[in-house]
Amino acid sequence: MSVPTREALAARDARDPLAPFRSRFVIADEGVLYLDGNSLGRLPAATPGFLAEVVGQEWGAGLVRSWSSWIDWTARLGDLLGTRLLGAGEGEVVLSDSTSVNLYKVASAALAASEPGRRTILYDGADFPTDRYLMQGLAAERGLTARGIEVPELEDALGDDVALVVLSLVDYRTAELLDMPRVTAMARHAGARVVWDLSHAAGVVDVRLAASGAELAVGCTYKYLNAGPGAPAFLYVRRDLQPELRQPIWGWFGQRDQFAMGPGYDPVAGIERFLVGTPPILSLAAVQPALETCVDAGIAEIRRKSVQQGELIIELADRWLGAHGISVASPRDPDRRGGHVCLRGPDTWQLCQALAEAGVICDFRAPDFLRLAPSPLYTRFVDVFDALDRLRTILERRDHLRFPAELSRVT
Amino acid sequence: MSVPTREALAARDARDPLAPFRSRFVIADEGVLYLDGNSLGRLPAATPGFLAEVVGQEWGAGLVRSWSSWIDWTARLGDLLGTRLLGAGEGEVVLSDSTSVNLYKVASAALAASEPGRRTILYDGADFPTDRYLMQGLAAERGLTARGIEVPELEDALGDDVALVVLSLVDYRTAELLDMPRVTAMARHAGARVVWDLSHAAGVVDVRLAASGAELAVGCTYKYLNAGPGAPAFLYVRRDLQPELRQPIWGWFGQRDQFAMGPGYDPVAGIERFLVGTPPILSLAAVQPALETCVDAGIAEIRRKSVQQGELIIELADRWLGAHGISVASPRDPDRRGGHVCLRGPDTWQLCQALAEAGVICDFRAPDFLRLAPSPLYTRFVDVFDALDRLRTILERRDHLRFPAELSRVT
Repeated sequence: MSVPTREALAARDARDPLAPFRSRFVIADEGVLYLDGNSLGRLPAATPGFLAEVVGQEWGAGLVRSWSSWIDWTARLGDLLGTRLLGAGEGEVVLSDSTSVNLYKVASAALAASEPGRRTILYDGADFPTDRYLMQGLAAERGLTARGIEVPELEDALGDDVALVVLSLVDYRTAELLDMPRVTAMARHAGARVVWDLSHAAGVVDVRLAASGAELAVGCTYKYLNAGPGAPAFLYVRRDLQPELRQPIWGWFGQRDQFAMGPGYDPVAGIERFLVGTPPILSLAAVQPALETCVDAGIAEIRRKSVQQGELIIELADRWLGAHGISVASPRDPDRRGGHVCLRGPDTWQLCQALAEAGVICDFRAPDFLRLAPSPLYTRFVDVFDALDRLRTILERRDHLRFPAELSRVT
Repeated sequence: MSVPTREALAARDARDPLAPFRSRFVIADEGVLYLDGNSLGRLPAATPGFLAEVVGQEWGAGLVRSWSSWIDWTARLGDLLGTRLLGAGEGEVVLSDSTSVNLYKVASAALAASEPGRRTILYDGADFPTDRYLMQGLAAERGLTARGIEVPELEDALGDDVALVVLSLVDYRTAELLDMPRVTAMARHAGARVVWDLSHAAGVVDVRLAASGAELAVGCTYKYLNAGPGAPAFLYVRRDLQPELRQPIWGWFGQRDQFAMGPGYDPVAGIERFLVGTPPILSLAAVQPALETCVDAGIAEIRRKSVQQGELIIELADRWLGAHGISVASPRDPDRRGGHVCLRGPDTWQLCQALAEAGVICDFRAPDFLRLAPSPLYTRFVDVFDALDRLRTILERRDHLRFPAELSRVT
C-alpha cells in the first residue's frame, strides 16, 4: 500500500468536519507547523477578547465587586470540563492550583483514608517527573514506601501493602494509553486506590471517568485543552468519595460558609473542599473560551481525528524514516495510543532542532524521544504530511548533524 | 483643632509627590471612591497592554518557544518584589502558587526542621482564616498541637514546646502592625521560628525583611501590589536557611536540572526549591507592571502617604462619626498601624451596603469591622474626605437602616 499523496490529504482536510475549528485559533505564522499541542496548545481566537473584557471591565471597572461572579468560576468551569470532556458528573471536577499541587492534595487525601497496614505507593517509574517526585515526597513525609515500577508489573506489585497507585492515562513520552477500567478494577480488587493523571489525555482522548470506575484524577488544561501557559489545573473526586476524603492544605476556599471566617476549619461536603486559596482569575478566565472550543467540537470527534492523524504519522514514519534508523515508539493499536506519536532513534535532539529551523515545532524528551503531537482542532492532515516530509528531507541531507548534541530546555 | 477642609486637602493633593501615579491606573468611574485596595487593588494602566502582548505575541505567535523567557519569571519578579519592596536580598523571594499553598509549604518546611520535642504551633486566633485553618491542618496531619492565641499573650506562650509561630504583620481586620524585629527576636530566643504573612503589608508598609531578622514569610500580590484577582503569591526564605529547609510538595519546578527529568527528586539549593508546578503565566504577567508601578513610586513614599491618609481617616472619624457610635478600632500610633483603618460600631454591615450605594467601596468583616483602605498610589486626600463625608451623611439620615442585616459575600 502506498502512502497517501499530499493531494489526497488536502481532500481529506476539505471534508474534515473539524476543519472549520482551525479558524477558531490564532495562527500567527502559516509557515510554522505546530506539532507541540501536547506541551502548550495554541491560543484560541476568542481568548484575547475575553481576557481583555475580564481585565478591563471586570477587574478595571467592576473592581472587588466582580468577586460575586469570579467566586464560582472554579466550580463552573470544572463542571464544563468534567461533564462535557471527561465523562464525569456535575460537582465532581474543579479547577484549582497546578497539576502538581492537585496531585499532592488528592494523593494525600487517599493515603489518609487508606487502611493503616497499607504503606506502599506505586508509581510508573517512567512517569512524568512531577508525579514521581511527589510520590517520593509523600512517602518521605509519612514514612511510607514509594516504588517506581514498570506498568506491566503492576498486577504482581499490587500486594496487600499497597495503598495508592499513581499512573498517567497517557504516557508523556510513548503516548501509551492505559486501560482505565481494567487497571482501576484491578487496583480496587487489591484494595488500593488509583489517582489518574490525565494531563496528556484531557481534550484529545475520550476520557470516561464515570464509566471507567475511576475514583480520583488530576490533570492540566494547557495542553490539548488550549487554556494557556500554566493555566489552572483540575482535579476529580468521585462524588461518593468526597465526604470521606480530606486533603491536607486547609485553605479558606474549601471552608463551609467561607465569609463567616469562623474559628475552625470545616470544609464543604462537595468537590470545593479540595480548593485552597484564591484562584488566579486571569489565568482561569482563559480556560473558558478554551473549553468552549473543545466542547463545540465534541470530544468524540476530536478523538476520531486524533487517531487518524496518529495513524498517518506512523504510516509516513514507517515508510520514510525507518531507513534512517528512526522507529515508532508509540503503540500501533490506536486503542492503546493517546494523542501524540513518539519516534526514537539516533540524534533525535538534533533532529528536533533541525525541524524547528525548518518550521516544524515538536519536542524532545530525554534520552531520545521525539514527540509529534497533532492537535485535531487546528492541525490539518497536510500539516502532518509536510512535517514528516521535512523530517525525511533533513534526514536525507543529514542537516541535523550541524546542531550541537545538548539537551532541550523547552517544556 | 478643626478638621481639614476639602479645599485644604485638594491643595495637599496638588503638592503630593505621588499624585501623578493616579494616572497610571484605570479609573473607570471617577464617581466611585475606592477604599478597598486592601482586598483587590486597582488595574494598572499598563497591565492590559502588557497582557495583550504576552497573550498575542508570546503565547499566540511564540507558542511553546516562549517558555525560554517564561521559565525565569517567578524568580525575576520575586527579586523585583523582594529587593525593591520587601527589603530582602536577591534570591530570597519567589512568586508561586497562592498565599495559602505557600504558607503550607513554608510552615511545613519549618516544622520538619524543628527540634523533635517542639510539638506546638502558635497562631493569632484572630488571624485571617486561611492562616488559622492551615495551621490546624498541619497539626492534625502531624499529630501536633495548633493553638490560637491573642498576640499580647505570645511572650508567655513561647515555651520550649513551640516549634512555629504564624502571624500576620498587619492584622486583616484591625490593621495592627506588629513589631517584626522584636517578635522575631523573641521567638528565636525561645527556639521557635516565625512565618510572617505579609498579605496586608506588602506594597503599603515598608517591610524590611533582612533588617528585621525575619526568616520566613509569605504574602499576596493582589492587594496593595495591584497584580490582579488571585494573582500569584510570594514566599520568602532567608538565604542561609534555604539549603536546610525542604518543603513537602516535591514538584518538578523545584528540581535541579529540571529538564533532565531524572529518576529522583533533587531540589535546587536556592529559593526555587519552594516552587512546585508550572506557574500560571497570564496571571503572573500581570504582576510585572503592577510591581513596576510600586517600585517607581518607592515604598518609603507610599508608606509616608499611607500614614497620612490613615491619620486623616481617624481624625474625620473621631470628629464626625463618634456621635453615631462608630469608633476607630485600629491603633492610633502610626508605627503600629498598617495601610487601612478599621471602624466598629452598630449596623456596620448595613453601613457598608449604604456606602456602596453612595459610591464608596470599602468592605466589611465579621462581626462588625468596617475597613477603609486608601491606596496611596491612586487614592487622593479628597477621596478620603468625600468618603467619610458620605459616611457621615448616611449616619445622619439613617439611610443604612433600609438595608437587610445579612453578611457580606465579598472577599
